Amino acid sequence: MDNNKIRMAMIGGGEGAFIGAVHRIAARLDGQIELVAGAFSAQSNKSLAMGQQLGLNPARCYASYQTLLQQEAELPESERIHFVAIVTPNHLHFPIATAAIEHGFHVLSDKPATLNLSEALRLQTQLQKSNCLYGLTHTYTGYPMVKEARHRIANGELGKVRKVVVEYSQGWLASADDENSKQASWRLDASKSGVSCCMGDIGVHAANLAEYVSGLEIEALCADLNTVVSGRQLDDDGTVLLRFGNGAKGVLMASQIALGEENNLTLKIYGDKASIEWSQMEPNSLWLRAANAPAQLIRTGVGSLSQAAISATRVPAGHPEGYLEAFANIYLNFANLIRAHQQQPNVQHEEFDVPSINAAVRGMAFIENAVAASAKDTKWHPFTIG
Amino acid sequence: MDNNKIRMAMIGGGEGAFIGAVHRIAARLDGQIELVAGAFSAQSNKSLAMGQQLGLNPARCYASYQTLLQQEAELPESERIHFVAIVTPNHLHFPIATAAIEHGFHVLSDKPATLNLSEALRLQTQLQKSNCLYGLTHTYTGYPMVKEARHRIANGELGKVRKVVVEYSQGWLASADDENSKQASWRLDASKSGVSCCMGDIGVHAANLAEYVSGLEIEALCADLNTVVSGRQLDDDGTVLLRFGNGAKGVLMASQIALGEENNLTLKIYGDKASIEWSQMEPNSLWLRAANAPAQLIRTGVGSLSQAAISATRVPAGHPEGYLEAFANIYLNFANLIRAHQQQPNVQHEEFDVPSINAAVRGMAFIENAVAASAKDTKWHPFTIG
Amino acid sequence: MDNNKIRMAMIGGGEGAFIGAVHRIAARLDGQIELVAGAFSAQSNKSLAMGQQLGLNPARCYASYQTLLQQEAELPESERIHFVAIVTPNHLHFPIATAAIEHGFHVLSDKPATLNLSEALRLQTQLQKSNCLYGLTHTYTGYPMVKEARHRIANGELGKVRKVVVEYSQGWLASADDENSKQASWRLDASKSGVSCCMGDIGVHAANLAEYVSGLEIEALCADLNTVVSGRQLDDDGTVLLRFGNGAKGVLMASQIALGEENNLTLKIYGDKASIEWSQMEPNSLWLRAANAPAQLIRTGVGSLSQAAISATRVPAGHPEGYLEAFANIYLNFANLIRAHQQQPNVQHEEFDVPSINAAVRGMAFIENAVAASAKDTKWHPFTIG
Amino acid sequence: MDNNKIRMAMIGGGEGAFIGAVHRIAARLDGQIELVAGAFSAQSNKSLAMGQQLGLNPARCYASYQTLLQQEAELPESERIHFVAIVTPNHLHFPIATAAIEHGFHVLSDKPATLNLSEALRLQTQLQKSNCLYGLTHTYTGYPMVKEARHRIANGELGKVRKVVVEYSQGWLASADDENSKQASWRLDASKSGVSCCMGDIGVHAANLAEYVSGLEIEALCADLNTVVSGRQLDDDGTVLLRFGNGAKGVLMASQIALGEENNLTLKIYGDKASIEWSQMEPNSLWLRAANAPAQLIRTGVGSLSQAAISATRVPAGHPEGYLEAFANIYLNFANLIRAHQQQPNVQHEEFDVPSINAAVRGMAFIENAVAASAKDTKWHPFTIG
Repeated sequence: MDNNKIRMAMIGGGEGAFIGAVHRIAARLDGQIELVAGAFSAQSNKSLAMGQQLGLNPARCYASYQTLLQQEAELPESERIHFVAIVTPNHLHFPIATAAIEHGFHVLSDKPATLNLSEALRLQTQLQKSNCLYGLTHTYTGYPMVKEARHRIANGELGKVRKVVVEYSQGWLASADDENSKQASWRLDASKSGVSCCMGDIGVHAANLAEYVSGLEIEALCADLNTVVSGRQLDDDGTVLLRFGNGAKGVLMASQIALGEENNLTLKIYGDKASIEWSQMEPNSLWLRAANAPAQLIRTGVGSLSQAAISATRVPAGHPEGYLEAFANIYLNFANLIRAHQQQPNVQHEEFDVPSINAAVRGMAFIENAVAASAKDTKWHPFTIG
Repeated sequence: MDNNKIRMAMIGGGEGAFIGAVHRIAARLDGQIELVAGAFSAQSNKSLAMGQQLGLNPARCYASYQTLLQQEAELPESERIHFVAIVTPNHLHFPIATAAIEHGFHVLSDKPATLNLSEALRLQTQLQKSNCLYGLTHTYTGYPMVKEARHRIANGELGKVRKVVVEYSQGWLASADDENSKQASWRLDASKSGVSCCMGDIGVHAANLAEYVSGLEIEALCADLNTVVSGRQLDDDGTVLLRFGNGAKGVLMASQIALGEENNLTLKIYGDKASIEWSQMEPNSLWLRAANAPAQLIRTGVGSLSQAAISATRVPAGHPEGYLEAFANIYLNFANLIRAHQQQPNVQHEEFDVPSINAAVRGMAFIENAVAASAKDTKWHPFTIG
Repeated sequence: MDNNKIRMAMIGGGEGAFIGAVHRIAARLDGQIELVAGAFSAQSNKSLAMGQQLGLNPARCYASYQTLLQQEAELPESERIHFVAIVTPNHLHFPIATAAIEHGFHVLSDKPATLNLSEALRLQTQLQKSNCLYGLTHTYTGYPMVKEARHRIANGELGKVRKVVVEYSQGWLASADDENSKQASWRLDASKSGVSCCMGDIGVHAANLAEYVSGLEIEALCADLNTVVSGRQLDDDGTVLLRFGNGAKGVLMASQIALGEENNLTLKIYGDKASIEWSQMEPNSLWLRAANAPAQLIRTGVGSLSQAAISATRVPAGHPEGYLEAFANIYLNFANLIRAHQQQPNVQHEEFDVPSINAAVRGMAFIENAVAASAKDTKWHPFTIG
Repeated sequence: MDNNKIRMAMIGGGEGAFIGAVHRIAARLDGQIELVAGAFSAQSNKSLAMGQQLGLNPARCYASYQTLLQQEAELPESERIHFVAIVTPNHLHFPIATAAIEHGFHVLSDKPATLNLSEALRLQTQLQKSNCLYGLTHTYTGYPMVKEARHRIANGELGKVRKVVVEYSQGWLASADDENSKQASWRLDASKSGVSCCMGDIGVHAANLAEYVSGLEIEALCADLNTVVSGRQLDDDGTVLLRFGNGAKGVLMASQIALGEENNLTLKIYGDKASIEWSQMEPNSLWLRAANAPAQLIRTGVGSLSQAAISATRVPAGHPEGYLEAFANIYLNFANLIRAHQQQPNVQHEEFDVPSINAAVRGMAFIENAVAASAKDTKWHPFTIG
């Protein structure tokens, strides 16, 4: 154990859980965080096996998050964890986050924040009363060129934003056979996933990205969610028309049945002076197009960039950074937030660029509003929270 | 005058009219058609000047389409035109087409077919009673890789089509200043353009392309048309959610205010076996993606292609063909259709792959249904014709 | 026959000759040139058949270029041709061009100009003594973005040019089987093609493009030509290292056995202030990259461009123009040159941007120098002419 | 300290040394390796400061590699390091590696292996007599799609390899001003860098990549190395023509003055059945093109891939992995090699896919042969080792 490092416990992320391994790499990458405890599985032998594989002290490999929280809380301050990372299926996010906060631990949670909006609102209230920090791994906000786009829009380079088009297309659930994987099965089970599969799993990323980069908030929506592969409980595809606070129009397309698509998250924002385009599968490029001028290809590490983009970059231009580095940026910023909070409890969360409980609440509201809007015969549905 | 060639008159297409010059190049490119007459402008000196610039016999440069039709009809069969190309603003398409057919001339019209659906239906009825041929320049169907995509889908390579996403984004009307051009002003004037600017000018291309390639027909829609630049009579942007006859879902996005976009028409069709993607700005490439396999980049001129694609290609692989060649393919097919009709009046229009009066009617219905759907508070609107 | 048009005869270009059809489309596309005569084949019935297919007067379909030149010369000035287009295999370029000039006709020749440098030099001398114009179809100089690149370099935007890399890769001769086509067989036959296949057919395009855009001349070279497919008389692949007049270094790669390549002609020029990159298969894009700044994607039809690029463009941005339009630009400029020459015999050829006899001589010198350099054991070979 | 982990010391990599940070991330990323000691700087306070910043035990932060090796060797086996990572300027690679081996430590060295070929050969001899393992960080061999390309070629999918084109272009030394950075200054100093800057720094990567993927060895070369920016001791640009063992031809281009290029390493290999193309700046894509068939875009994580590619991939398709992951793959494989060696001293290095001392020797030979070949007037120079 390295006393300089921020100490983390992982809850979930046992054998076969893709996102647990991603969180661990992200936590490890910059050498600021040390994984020291875990409740990787509800089966104690499995949890122990995973912990040992990861080099943890067996005494800190737990079979339940309750035990983990209780026992970690009893450790001396110099040893016990600073935060828990929650990487379980969605239905467990809320009880774990709640319990962690009760024990005084900060929380970094996978998305979507909770099983439903009501939980997210309760979590928000709990956090306001606590001294704990909360972050949500909206990974795509961690890319340098996403931060650059946000910076340029905030600086007015696009003028007034008029239109936002965000697409998140995947093909991995295109066939009924695809449901048998561990990752697919819980996502299609409403009791574990919530009211939506496609909007809850990826649509919420797209909505978050649109709001994060544009600086605007969704105010109304018109949704068309579909269950394309028959027999599923939940949606696997959908399109949502959007209205933003400044009057801008938007289109959000998400699909898990777009056969042949890998992880195609693309954002285009059109202003009255210029537009931007960014695509997750070529993340180190950002197009900026102004009227009557050559398009500019802004690249990670090239030329004059915002501090946010520079800080999120590790290697020189042309050495591609990818998904794991974007993810690590969330972890790194969260570690920096914790350190700052150690010095100054009233630290401003916003300055650390970590997706917050507010983003978490808006994300859950997006999911529920999209589902509600899709069920209605009227076209437009106000975006309501609670 | 070359007696082997199909003879054409142009109506519209005077100085400054972009699309007139395009039609002339398209007609000329394959050496099958000769422009021999024209009513290029309502001002006789202007019409004459343009005709002389084009090397026409001054006697066949007319100041009105009425005169043109009347006088051409009086010429000996071996001299008079076979067809008129209509390249005027929209409100003149119907009266000119009607008059041309009355005089026994075939018609190749720019899109949209007429000012409104009612006219298109009357034109359809008139054509059924006549011995005249009619074609519509839905240019984008002229590209070899569009034809290849259509062929592959018809052959079942995609399996059941589940989702169609078509985007047509331009930025040329992003600013109010852009309205002053000749081309912009009439498109934004309902009396000349019809009930829609954006859907009428480009949305109709997108709808046609989606139906042409997928082989499906739109059955219902949910529309959100916008006038983004204030002060305009008509829409300059819009999104339309679609339902196709086989249950497939669709999204059609069209915009003329997408600043920085040139002429970005992109089509993605997802089936349960594979998907395709085609983009007009790289027209000689067609992506085909099947499950769990490398994506295939099908290229004009490479490997085994459909006869429709091969016939629409003039030069070897890697020698890019573009918009003018796609346009010329419509003209070439129309010339072939006329020749076949000369031999056999009952020729099947469909075999010649020229957008027909049926496509014209569906296009006008699309425009009117999209406008009607957009005005309604209910989400879904049935696609009705007449 | 249209008296406003420039009248052309074609020599070569019979059935199955790909490049003849391309020349005809290029000549036709802008409506400035009329094909009125031809010696398409040495067999009179074939020549006649092709002429009739093209709508020519049978009396002007000849079985030999000698007859064509003689009989056309006897026609009244208002009827007879202005120029001949030579589209035969290489070994006939010189005798035809020579004879045409003797009969007072201008010449537009396919490349390479002649069978060898000696012929090119004699042709140059003959032209200097004549009142005839000569152009060479180095097609790739006809693209708007190639002209834009040249303009930017001439204007100093790249600073001092340091390095030129040009690649021209094709795969169509990758297999011995590929030799059976009409187009392959003569190119691999030294008596018809000259001392080189690959350098003569495509390397010469690459060398011309490098000099045209950079404004520099090759002064020395080190060559490695290869016959990859065994049994061939001539090279089918090669790399040539270059030294330019200003000290800039260069690399020219050409291959006809690069299996999988279509027609990949790519040019990169690096200066001390900026660099450009252009690729023929995406011809409407030109990259301009300056130090410490976003790359700029200059696009045909977008923003402020050189007059040379604008004049070479027919349709708005985003409507791709391709190979045939680039080819047509050579024809159009040649027609304009002829018209100007009709007014003023001392017209400056350079102003019309048509590849000239000087380019022709340099091209033939490039081919012969590359072959000579490849045969030598010493590394560097001076670029000599005659 | 985690007893399951492979323990590493870093030599070099102090403040401002870009590559040191990269090595640390790469070592850390997969959680298999722990950095426990370091001689980061020759100034003991700087070395200590860096070590503390990294959370090391201050007692294991040394001011010289000699002290590090000596003191680590005295630690109990359960504590002392397993290997040293060498990230100093080139001239120190050999003495450090030699000393490390003398102390019984494995070595993972940055490239180029040594200051000159003679040192590399001595190192090879020393290793043969030792029980130590040696690896070289030819990072680009760590990419999954590079491994896939190698696998496909080894399996015969390309048929006989005929031509290899490898380009490595950067612009970061385009200006004399660029020399002032710490990273530039030693690379341009022959006493620290060796006989070449451009070939030693990046050309050697390109040569290694060409041999690694093609499975062929360079047998002869013709080189043209240049010092483009005046006043430099060493080359900053160069082209090398290649002959491979099977008769295949090659071209290797490397440049550090290619203004506007970031880190453009591109490899194209043409066989008689198919060709491949890979580019480091889009590393998760691999083009495979066979004759008369659509090009295939092979993507990390999609479809049926080689075990080598799968093992080198951490996240699902469409979640881009980049340079740091490729680097981490070298570290991970080296850790696996060490573990296997712990079990079985005669372990086959080749099975672990870590660039070996043989690659190191060939790399140094490439650099020296290129420099020698460039200095000669004769064209071809045999590739000799020692």
